[in-house]
Amino acid sequence: MDKITVTILGASGYTGGELLRLLLFHPHVRIQQVTSERYAGKRVARVHPNLRTLTNLSFVSAEALQPCDTLFVCLPHGESMQQMPRLLSLAKHIIDLSGDFRLNQAADYPQWYHYDHTSPQLLKQFVYGIPELHREEMKGARLISSAGCNATATLLALYPLFRAGLVDGRRTVVEVKGGSSEGGNRPSEATHHPERHGVVRSYKPTAHRHIAEIEQELAAFGDVQIHFSATAVGMVRGVLATCHVFLKDMVSERDLWKIFRQAYGQEPFIRIVKERQGIYRYPEPKILIGSNFCDIGFEKDPRSSRVVVMSAIDNLMKGAAGQAVQAFNIMHGLPETTALEFPGLHPI
Amino acid sequence: MDKITVTILGASGYTGGELLRLLLFHPHVRIQQVTSERYAGKRVARVHPNLRTLTNLSFVSAEALQPCDTLFVCLPHGESMQQMPRLLSLAKHIIDLSGDFRLNQAADYPQWYHYDHTSPQLLKQFVYGIPELHREEMKGARLISSAGCNATATLLALYPLFRAGLVDGRRTVVEVKGGSSEGGNRPSEATHHPERHGVVRSYKPTAHRHIAEIEQELAAFGDVQIHFSATAVGMVRGVLATCHVFLKDMVSERDLWKIFRQAYGQEPFIRIVKERQGIYRYPEPKILIGSNFCDIGFEKDPRSSRVVVMSAIDNLMKGAAGQAVQAFNIMHGLPETTALEFPGLHPI
Amino acid sequence: MDKITVTILGASGYTGGELLRLLLFHPHVRIQQVTSERYAGKRVARVHPNLRTLTNLSFVSAEALQPCDTLFVCLPHGESMQQMPRLLSLAKHIIDLSGDFRLNQAADYPQWYHYDHTSPQLLKQFVYGIPELHREEMKGARLISSAGCNATATLLALYPLFRAGLVDGRRTVVEVKGGSSEGGNRPSEATHHPERHGVVRSYKPTAHRHIAEIEQELAAFGDVQIHFSATAVGMVRGVLATCHVFLKDMVSERDLWKIFRQAYGQEPFIRIVKERQGIYRYPEPKILIGSNFCDIGFEKDPRSSRVVVMSAIDNLMKGAAGQAVQAFNIMHGLPETTALEFPGLHPI
Amino acid sequence: MDKITVTILGASGYTGGELLRLLLFHPHVRIQQVTSERYAGKRVARVHPNLRTLTNLSFVSAEALQPCDTLFVCLPHGESMQQMPRLLSLAKHIIDLSGDFRLNQAADYPQWYHYDHTSPQLLKQFVYGIPELHREEMKGARLISSAGCNATATLLALYPLFRAGLVDGRRTVVEVKGGSSEGGNRPSEATHHPERHGVVRSYKPTAHRHIAEIEQELAAFGDVQIHFSATAVGMVRGVLATCHVFLKDMVSERDLWKIFRQAYGQEPFIRIVKERQGIYRYPEPKILIGSNFCDIGFEKDPRSSRVVVMSAIDNLMKGAAGQAVQAFNIMHGLPETTALEFPGLHPI
Repeated sequence: MDKITVTILGASGYTGGELLRLLLFHPHVRIQQVTSERYAGKRVARVHPNLRTLTNLSFVSAEALQPCDTLFVCLPHGESMQQMPRLLSLAKHIIDLSGDFRLNQAADYPQWYHYDHTSPQLLKQFVYGIPELHREEMKGARLISSAGCNATATLLALYPLFRAGLVDGRRTVVEVKGGSSEGGNRPSEATHHPERHGVVRSYKPTAHRHIAEIEQELAAFGDVQIHFSATAVGMVRGVLATCHVFLKDMVSERDLWKIFRQAYGQEPFIRIVKERQGIYRYPEPKILIGSNFCDIGFEKDPRSSRVVVMSAIDNLMKGAAGQAVQAFNIMHGLPETTALEFPGLHPI
Repeated sequence: MDKITVTILGASGYTGGELLRLLLFHPHVRIQQVTSERYAGKRVARVHPNLRTLTNLSFVSAEALQPCDTLFVCLPHGESMQQMPRLLSLAKHIIDLSGDFRLNQAADYPQWYHYDHTSPQLLKQFVYGIPELHREEMKGARLISSAGCNATATLLALYPLFRAGLVDGRRTVVEVKGGSSEGGNRPSEATHHPERHGVVRSYKPTAHRHIAEIEQELAAFGDVQIHFSATAVGMVRGVLATCHVFLKDMVSERDLWKIFRQAYGQEPFIRIVKERQGIYRYPEPKILIGSNFCDIGFEKDPRSSRVVVMSAIDNLMKGAAGQAVQAFNIMHGLPETTALEFPGLHPI
Repeated sequence: MDKITVTILGASGYTGGELLRLLLFHPHVRIQQVTSERYAGKRVARVHPNLRTLTNLSFVSAEALQPCDTLFVCLPHGESMQQMPRLLSLAKHIIDLSGDFRLNQAADYPQWYHYDHTSPQLLKQFVYGIPELHREEMKGARLISSAGCNATATLLALYPLFRAGLVDGRRTVVEVKGGSSEGGNRPSEATHHPERHGVVRSYKPTAHRHIAEIEQELAAFGDVQIHFSATAVGMVRGVLATCHVFLKDMVSERDLWKIFRQAYGQEPFIRIVKERQGIYRYPEPKILIGSNFCDIGFEKDPRSSRVVVMSAIDNLMKGAAGQAVQAFNIMHGLPETTALEFPGLHPI
Repeated sequence: MDKITVTILGASGYTGGELLRLLLFHPHVRIQQVTSERYAGKRVARVHPNLRTLTNLSFVSAEALQPCDTLFVCLPHGESMQQMPRLLSLAKHIIDLSGDFRLNQAADYPQWYHYDHTSPQLLKQFVYGIPELHREEMKGARLISSAGCNATATLLALYPLFRAGLVDGRRTVVEVKGGSSEGGNRPSEATHHPERHGVVRSYKPTAHRHIAEIEQELAAFGDVQIHFSATAVGMVRGVLATCHVFLKDMVSERDLWKIFRQAYGQEPFIRIVKERQGIYRYPEPKILIGSNFCDIGFEKDPRSSRVVVMSAIDNLMKGAAGQAVQAFNIMHGLPETTALEFPGLHPI
């Protein structure tokens, strides 16, 4: 089989680097170009030191972009939509990792992203990038928009119960705990080590933009409002979404098990983690660092109709680059786990 | 003024050590004895290395206990209630830091603590130990039961809005993030550094025993059910309680301000933290390490009736030893901030 | 090619778990048994949660050991030597990861390990397990003894300059900084998270047992005494050896480059890291987590004859399991990097 | 006693903030002004969130500087020397915390600081700021230059043995491990949390500028050359200096004890930490966070003439602000420990 030529636009960021790490070992991929305005002309390993000796690639400017089969776009929100019309003429397939093509309605962008969308006609052409929700549409798709990391963890936790029609749709509270790599690689006062180390920082108690895509995906199941907060904690990678779901009617633990098993029993990257004992009896992001797994667990509150659904991912993997490569594999009819076999480390 | 003779029972644990650190510098206190069965005969600094050269005290066995004015009891849950009848004859005042005297109803112990209470007649004699809620009862009190750390953070966050009658009482969701010192100083697989480092561990998604005291204190304000989860994160000290409260009726941010200011404007250890910008615009436990402050902030969700109230403390200080010394000061008519002036560090 | 049957003795520890992680993905290996007395009968994933869904193996007792081709022995120091005579009858090849077969002279064990060796006749049969130093002897070897993690980092740093005869042999000072996983998975006061978090703990200022194997390997190059100290810092994985070497005669930076390039230019797992700028211009263990690389850099002190050689590894990989798999590959004539391709993560 | 009017120049940095924290509680001090060009007009708590509600001070520009008794100068290296001539007319006493007045010889500045000194005539007027070395000169002194943090830890470790004439002066190797607050509060790629978290970063293997002041202070004891390296590790505060000293002649552990006890037995802020057992048997910076202690321990290598002397401080306290306040107290004839009583926390 011929290799698929792949280019990464905006490859000097953390997501771009993670894509490179995965795609350099992908047996069906040839990386054609990696772009960065800031580092054009510099070796990749200057920015991604883990890739030393593994590649001789150097960054080029986006101006030098050549046609390729698949383009991974890792530009900042707001910039991606402006480049997209030009990019469509350069690549057969595009996987966009910004937020610019996640929402179906252009009208939602001013509220959540604080700008008007410049390519509204393209919004409906993108498949929303969570494979477990949109696998069929991804097969042979031309355009995929990767989901937000917090949205991915939250949606994978909530989807089975919402789809089963069990949930009081306007009552769900979601608390996401995330690491510092979520914010990208630009230094700021907020990310300065003495300030960021050991925090439990409420960075978005309300109005987090990932709410928009979460509610959009759940809208099929009735009237939904997600009460979402995000808290930054002291690690680099990882997301834990703790979802407080209230059931409309009594459901046994056993039936909850069935629902999750039906939803995810065949999924290569979702593990249901629910054990009676042990310190890893609930999902734990730290053992997922570098892996594409999403671990999901749940616990019924014996005192109420609440079910706590917990979902753990590595934000740069299942929440970004790993999800994108998984979508890439589906798009091209390749085995879904190709280049994504790394199981995570313990201890770490 | 004569010094008050104070003894700490169970002084080799983290709370006992913190009490020692505070009381060694308390101008009106003379520490008479500190007990530890495990370290009887050993110097205090062997166990609390920060106190090297600051005291020559050695631990004694509880058998050697002498009468004193005030006894701080730092025994494990379940042991404190068994010792209490004897202790009453040895001290004029007792401040108990276990959970054994927090609940008013003996009948609640089997459910939340998994044992029957052996001294049920004493339960109603203890004042619940949060000064901001029970200051008047503490003045001259004989028996005080310090509150749980997570309960303290949660109650101080919720109290003003519940008291004002604004809250849908059965809908509140509370997510507490805590550090590893909450679990005390006994090593286990759960606290082994390679396993505990960098976790986002759901250690009590449901059924946390602090729920009992939270609901007990809020019961005065109507039908209350708190949906509570606790997650362990990678620091040593600190608690952040993120409380998702749903208002019965519309209340403006300005009126919320008023309510919090009325409740806490005169409190020496509560700061309302709500700023427009800056990385410390919400309460942050890391800058409270070693201090007795409880920082409280809030944010109204513009899309719903939700108010997110955030509350940060140092679990060993405002959540344990600091709270106990504050109660001690009130009990004895001393200035409330005595020995509690340390402001916390930045950066840390 | 037939798969090689492999058994791991003492597979519930961190090194055993890491071997499992690697060997489960090794294309030429079939894992036959994994033993643990403590967890016999339990699923592997109970102890190594990162391997959930990746294997159905359960632990068995060492009593149930069956013949196999290659046995990885991960028993504690002192126990390995006692089991070894029996193990020799069960496996064609043995790779021992304890310290019991690292020293050539039985007489050295009382000094460094505080016990008499029970199988002194075997000591000379084991190849010392650092491939870069003993690759030829490993080809077709029957018995290999993996090197200590700190010894590995130190020796790979020192070897080229010592071999070149440039060093004042009795003057070298080595300071190793290591993570908490070096101590294994047994909880203790020393590893209790509140005590271990954020330490800079001088755990072996003198008399570290890895000195013995370091000096043994360097003895070929003259009179050698290594002044070694080990300090524990706040991470889980990683070793940085900072080696202060004093040159006998003036050598230019350019010539030092040549010496290191000659020594390691063809090595698949050693990278010379020496850049003019950038925050990763010296070796950094954090980007090696999970990888088998040893990154080595150096800097000449312009004021003296000192050269600072820095060497970074993941102690569980190049310092233990990765090194053992690399030796296994050489022993069996397989491509040396098989199952060891993981490049490490950035950021992490 | 009248309060001493104190102004802090450059008070928005970490050292300035720490000075404020200490001086706000100093019974003999009235803080007159705190300057910051960047934050002029802003409240102190905006920058130092731990000081919320404890002060109403706002920053002013240095242009608005008024005469005061004592001026603490926390300007960057290179700027302090330029301002100094003007500052001399504004304050009776000056304590400078930059490196600009640490070296006696103007000729040394180009080599170590890469600039020419603009006020060489002032260099000899400043007392070098380590109280344990220059207490007598500080009494009534007008000008004091605080020592560098790494230099302080190193000098306090080395001084007794050098002064006793026991050391091979050109053979000492010093390895300092430090936290991220050493670099100040300006964000950069090097301090970006995902890059800085969990590092063991060799930031100055050779040519660290603190070498200059270390050798200057030790020069009285003969021909001295310090082989110094600095490594950044993953904490915020703290320095551990591990000093490998080689004795000229045999000295017993007992005699080493005597030497250290003679040197420091009466020192209020130096503790000799050398215990047979326990996890804090050597000096540990983490329990010194916020305190002004320097803990010093040592261990003789039984195999050689090496003595490993370890010295731990909080770089912002004994290594900067605490040292400066201690010097201030001596300068003004106040009890030396005033405002410096905080003992450090355990656990932390």
